[in-house]
Amino acid sequence: MLEARTPIPVSEAVARVIEKALPLGSETVLLAESYGRILAAPLVATHDVPPFNRAPYDGFAIRSQDSAGASNENRITFTVVDHIGAGEVSHKTLGEREAVRIMTGASVPSGANAVVMLEQAISSEAEATFMIRKPFAEQENLSLRGEDMREGEFVIPAGSFINPGTAALLATFGYGEVEVAKRPVVGVLATGTELLEVHEALTPGKIRNSNGPMISTQLARMGVPCKMYKMASDNLEECLVAVRKAMEETDCLITTGGVSVGDFDYLPAIYERIQAEVLFNKVAMRPGSVTTVAHVDGYFLFGLSGNPSACYTGFELFVRPALLKKMGAQKLYLPRTKAVLAGDFTKANPFTRFVRAVYDGTHVRPAGFNKSNAVSSIARGDSLIVLPGGTRGFKAGDVVDVLLLGVDEGLSGWALS
Amino acid sequence: MLEARTPIPVSEAVARVIEKALPLGSETVLLAESYGRILAAPLVATHDVPPFNRAPYDGFAIRSQDSAGASNENRITFTVVDHIGAGEVSHKTLGEREAVRIMTGASVPSGANAVVMLEQAISSEAEATFMIRKPFAEQENLSLRGEDMREGEFVIPAGSFINPGTAALLATFGYGEVEVAKRPVVGVLATGTELLEVHEALTPGKIRNSNGPMISTQLARMGVPCKMYKMASDNLEECLVAVRKAMEETDCLITTGGVSVGDFDYLPAIYERIQAEVLFNKVAMRPGSVTTVAHVDGYFLFGLSGNPSACYTGFELFVRPALLKKMGAQKLYLPRTKAVLAGDFTKANPFTRFVRAVYDGTHVRPAGFNKSNAVSSIARGDSLIVLPGGTRGFKAGDVVDVLLLGVDEGLSGWALS
Repeated sequence: MLEARTPIPVSEAVARVIEKALPLGSETVLLAESYGRILAAPLVATHDVPPFNRAPYDGFAIRSQDSAGASNENRITFTVVDHIGAGEVSHKTLGEREAVRIMTGASVPSGANAVVMLEQAISSEAEATFMIRKPFAEQENLSLRGEDMREGEFVIPAGSFINPGTAALLATFGYGEVEVAKRPVVGVLATGTELLEVHEALTPGKIRNSNGPMISTQLARMGVPCKMYKMASDNLEECLVAVRKAMEETDCLITTGGVSVGDFDYLPAIYERIQAEVLFNKVAMRPGSVTTVAHVDGYFLFGLSGNPSACYTGFELFVRPALLKKMGAQKLYLPRTKAVLAGDFTKANPFTRFVRAVYDGTHVRPAGFNKSNAVSSIARGDSLIVLPGGTRGFKAGDVVDVLLLGVDEGLSGWALS
Repeated sequence: MLEARTPIPVSEAVARVIEKALPLGSETVLLAESYGRILAAPLVATHDVPPFNRAPYDGFAIRSQDSAGASNENRITFTVVDHIGAGEVSHKTLGEREAVRIMTGASVPSGANAVVMLEQAISSEAEATFMIRKPFAEQENLSLRGEDMREGEFVIPAGSFINPGTAALLATFGYGEVEVAKRPVVGVLATGTELLEVHEALTPGKIRNSNGPMISTQLARMGVPCKMYKMASDNLEECLVAVRKAMEETDCLITTGGVSVGDFDYLPAIYERIQAEVLFNKVAMRPGSVTTVAHVDGYFLFGLSGNPSACYTGFELFVRPALLKKMGAQKLYLPRTKAVLAGDFTKANPFTRFVRAVYDGTHVRPAGFNKSNAVSSIARGDSLIVLPGGTRGFKAGDVVDVLLLGVDEGLSGWALS
């Protein structure tokens, strides 16, 4: 009855999943709806940026050679021959000691190769002339055509997440539509005869299904839509029907519970019935050692633990990178840093331990009640401490690895000058 | 013509904005649509979690006192009197050396105070009895009622961001609907006579408006909707009409450009005409020293620079915390850490400098072309290096402050065991 399972290291489990993740292809979306999507093609500059020599300040465009020798004692006077705003073009070509009054962002006129900032000029009453008290070097106060990007340049590689800066680039180059990776539709099926729906009243022996809403929110955090499935009963055949329906309607399926060794843990039997290849069914980690991943022809079945903390961790460690790989992302893995442990963590670790934690930029501390069935610490945490297996415990002051899982919420204090 | 402006420190500018930000009130949303919203009321536990003494493993519920003295030489046999799955309740009360076969998550029956894990039991063929080889302490292998949370406990404070863990808590306690902060509707008006729309072809002297799409994406990153406004011409009166229309239709307005000292920089005149109080019009920072914030009766007018990098930085430093305060958030400020500078940054800093950067968890390096008009480095960066003003430059190896602005995209390597 007790099946022997061989635990594999987390890194090996991650690698097995990533290897099997197949890309979903691409689709076109409007720029205005592209935040958080993943670029399916490199972003290529369609022109130089800036597209012309540009005034970065309000002032006067001059020929630098006319300013040679200027000093407080030897002020040089320029005659203003034109006046242009941003977006305008002067048709004048500058002659000796001629200048064009120019606004920030305007195209520098022909012949000009430096800009005198308004604050650097002593203007006459009528602004028809101005004086300078210092020489200006060639290209001084000038934004040169192409200094930021060159036409044809591959600016952002395919597989990058579209952030506000990417949106600015897309707009700059006239991409009103963007080719992005298709998002998988993910099925979520919480198994467990003890589970009630959110709206149901608590009865003896039962708890409400929190893993389903948690996973749908983990997916929402990635911008990935989901479909929820239900089991009508705790019968293997009916469970199989639900799994087969999900396989028809979605790009992958996440189940919670049912992967352990209990009498109603049907997932191992289901994997067999649908002829799925089990990539692993035991990982050398806590919580979530029973996490199982199987696949049939690139369709993933993620068998996460029914324990909320184990379920949460299993999602972020295995589901997240697999979905990102399906979306062609370049960066598959959680952001990571090192931090100083703010308190002792004396529990010995035969397996790699992931502790839900609070990170403040330098220190990290466990986010509270630390068992695999904990729910509160998932909400309270913004990171996961990673404690390698085979260790006897950790002390305050030890430097540990931290995976960042929600630090973008920010801090309550500014604390910079 | 040149107006004297007194720069104030960034921290002072932030404080002036925050002081004036007024809360918007709350609304109710479905749990399934609550990701990223901000809790308007504390999340209170409606029952103990777990709600009953619970088996954390598959095994046998026993009375611990019956196991006293058990050893490999002195095995103790128990009789299995019932068999329950998760969600089921046994109506048996355990007598001496009686046990109930129990699944993970099930309620421990009356009289039982320990669980023998399946792996710790030597079962008879028919599973009617089993033997143990060690004593079990009271509460061994038991999840105690209320060990995670107590009924009535304030689990998560108002003002917290709803993350996947919060969703799990809300589901646990039967909150199918959640009271969350209302989101502001933010108006965005890009000024600048040089600006073309995304779909327009480039013409001499013109560039496409990238600040508008960038800001709408910065807002999208915060889950905040926006309305875009246009200026029909570069005429002060028409600009005023656009601003007044936005003030009627939105909760605050972000303008880009027009805050400098150029001849077409109308914003200062507009603030006067609408009798707005200017909180500051010069900040001791680069880029974005001309960033201006004004307000009329709690309606903010954020006058960001027209230079993309300055605009981006101004948004994250001032607009973001102000909007979060309006939404009652607890954590108003960007996440922050310290990192080792990966290269020299020799430019002297009279003002605090914010450098768009790439952070890898330990080191940070500038994200490329570093001028206030840069666009590429906004997209390439995932953080901002903060270099205090009054310094002469920084060297590789120096430890600097870093604001994290997109590190949640993650890393390209797993690199943990």
